[in-house]
Amino acid sequence: MKAEIIAVGTELLLGQIVNSNAQFLSVELAALGIDVYFQTVVGDNSSRLQQAIEIAKTRADLILFTGGIGPTEDDLTKDALAASLGRGLYLDPVAMSHVERFFSERGVSMTENNRKQALVIDDSTPLHNESGLAVGVALKDQNTYYVVLPGPPREMKPMFANKAKPWLLQHALTEEMPLYSKMLKFAGIGESLLEDKLINLIHGQNDPTLAPYAKEGEVTVRISTKAPSQNEAMAKLDALQEKIRNILPEHLYADTDVPLEQVLVEWMANAGITVSCAESCTGGMLMESLTSIPGSSSVFQGGIVCYSNEMKMKLLNVPQNYLEGEEAPGAVSREVAQALAEQVRTIVDSDFGLSVTGVAGPGHSERKPVGLVYIGIAERNGRTDVFELRLRGDRQNIRVNSVKAILYRLWRRLVERG
Amino acid sequence: MKAEIIAVGTELLLGQIVNSNAQFLSVELAALGIDVYFQTVVGDNSSRLQQAIEIAKTRADLILFTGGIGPTEDDLTKDALAASLGRGLYLDPVAMSHVERFFSERGVSMTENNRKQALVIDDSTPLHNESGLAVGVALKDQNTYYVVLPGPPREMKPMFANKAKPWLLQHALTEEMPLYSKMLKFAGIGESLLEDKLINLIHGQNDPTLAPYAKEGEVTVRISTKAPSQNEAMAKLDALQEKIRNILPEHLYADTDVPLEQVLVEWMANAGITVSCAESCTGGMLMESLTSIPGSSSVFQGGIVCYSNEMKMKLLNVPQNYLEGEEAPGAVSREVAQALAEQVRTIVDSDFGLSVTGVAGPGHSERKPVGLVYIGIAERNGRTDVFELRLRGDRQNIRVNSVKAILYRLWRRLVERG
Repeated sequence: MKAEIIAVGTELLLGQIVNSNAQFLSVELAALGIDVYFQTVVGDNSSRLQQAIEIAKTRADLILFTGGIGPTEDDLTKDALAASLGRGLYLDPVAMSHVERFFSERGVSMTENNRKQALVIDDSTPLHNESGLAVGVALKDQNTYYVVLPGPPREMKPMFANKAKPWLLQHALTEEMPLYSKMLKFAGIGESLLEDKLINLIHGQNDPTLAPYAKEGEVTVRISTKAPSQNEAMAKLDALQEKIRNILPEHLYADTDVPLEQVLVEWMANAGITVSCAESCTGGMLMESLTSIPGSSSVFQGGIVCYSNEMKMKLLNVPQNYLEGEEAPGAVSREVAQALAEQVRTIVDSDFGLSVTGVAGPGHSERKPVGLVYIGIAERNGRTDVFELRLRGDRQNIRVNSVKAILYRLWRRLVERG
Repeated sequence: MKAEIIAVGTELLLGQIVNSNAQFLSVELAALGIDVYFQTVVGDNSSRLQQAIEIAKTRADLILFTGGIGPTEDDLTKDALAASLGRGLYLDPVAMSHVERFFSERGVSMTENNRKQALVIDDSTPLHNESGLAVGVALKDQNTYYVVLPGPPREMKPMFANKAKPWLLQHALTEEMPLYSKMLKFAGIGESLLEDKLINLIHGQNDPTLAPYAKEGEVTVRISTKAPSQNEAMAKLDALQEKIRNILPEHLYADTDVPLEQVLVEWMANAGITVSCAESCTGGMLMESLTSIPGSSSVFQGGIVCYSNEMKMKLLNVPQNYLEGEEAPGAVSREVAQALAEQVRTIVDSDFGLSVTGVAGPGHSERKPVGLVYIGIAERNGRTDVFELRLRGDRQNIRVNSVKAILYRLWRRLVERG
């Protein structure tokens, strides 16, 4: 099945927003085994929108629209599609009472243009909006399937997942077996090295399929298979997952789409383990990452950002002769990473103490190169490990990758500990 | 002038990457006074690419391509465009020697397919690539202008700015006066309130034009005018900027595209002012934001993340009776925000001490609602201000907006201080 995604909105053509809806829908359609051949963006203009529909009709079996179904005069998607199909529009009673309830609950009087949000096309299936007011539409016309979704991602995504996708599975994809997928998440390995290690599987493997999946700063592989039942699918996916784990035993940390900091916080919360941090070049980014996870307060009590040498001495008791003098190892050194991890652990009285010290750039420091970073992990009644990193990229890349590196090393330490 | 942007690449249709190139080019073209009517995405497929070109020819005066000009068999953009125009391709000698030099400098032997990256279309202007190997192309054919750019943003952006834009100004936009713009940056005000305040200017103002500009988490207005010289343009833009400043005197913080934390760090660095932070619910995000700016080490020496009550007492000397007991104001209170700001300032011995304490959710805490946040600013030999915030959104929104709020309040304090 060939699909086209038409995103409607002048704000996209002005570059005010990026077309993240097309990306989301492309990923979802690929997972359903549907090939997206074109993505089109058109403004809030009736004739150009109808022109785009006519072109899409000639080359797609499924046309997905996103945007242009709100209450304003500029919202034209349903009108244009109805006109192109020679159909009428009517007020869907369920959607209309949803709109009315929204206004009456807020004690606000509804303006007339809001009725428009409850319009659906004749002989279509209304897709009700759980997160907003505008109703979506799904229909079939002369062997082409049409789905109309809202523009705001927080409305579009749940409507696709909960309304449009089940409709597609029931009406458009009946002859195909459902597709099941797992997202495998990796840490401590770069994308190109991962592809290298898995290249034979990627090329030799037809069912399940295996695709590296680029997501900002993450290394992810999606494995997918079509099967008549979830049990059969999972048996195939689990077998492939084991093959992959055997190739990369030290890097596969999850088989659902969760960040590593979430795995760590949940693991430590369950095991009753606490952690504290002393950060220099990352300036708080490591603690920000841990505390981004709900429930982190049972794991993380506090920590210290010691950006200057003075603060390393004053707040974390780093010996002066580590930092000052010709023979001193300096702030960016194994010795200081070790002292920071051990001291913050002692001060906070946590099970683990983590530290990061390095040169994030743009300029070098202590005659040490940009990208040289030391990370430390100290453990109560245990050893302290220090790792040297040589990172590339700009200040932001170096800081982000320092945080990823220490999260990875903490995960390995927890695995080893059992 | 009507333009269409055609992004070429199967990775876009699979949703592996978002089409940020289309956004970048749309913004750039809008700034040149060119209207983008369509954005199209097509895969690495010769016949569908040619089909997209034929459609674009019928509806655009300027067609910009991005992607599909690398060395592999899948890179088809220049071939497809040449075929569609009935023209040939030849090796550009400058681009060819650039490719050869690249390989010889690295001591790597060049494979034959890399010659492809030096191909240009007959009777076109080669756009040489400063950041990569593939040469771009600009040409005019039957009143339509064509520009071919690489796909990787780090190559595409400089080629557009330094090669394609000057070519367009010289060949396609000769009859138009150049467009000059300024980005005005605002803090401490939401986007919809800003639009409300400026609505008369937005609608009444034709030259310069004024457009609110959505950028993640930022409130920005772009003012633009066409003028024969930069001096004339700047006189008009400066006058409008003053009008806007008079409407929003407490919110306009910059007239170039810089984040508020950069303005703050540079201001404090010049004035010899130092700052420290005590963070609870933001967990390090405030310090991360300040230290993201190069040169922040002369302003920020260190700070403390005190996530638990115990750490507020132990590391920041918050009195126990603020935190524990029936009558205690609790961790999320004016009293604790004040104590945190004053204590961290004293401990680090900085000119300012900043604090954040609040309920980021998802659950409430101390029977206080999600979104209640107190921020404090203490000053050496000066007063301590505490502000109560009532923020909406999820955990991440509340944390980000807490950081924005305290950066804004610090900026106001520096303005007031002079």
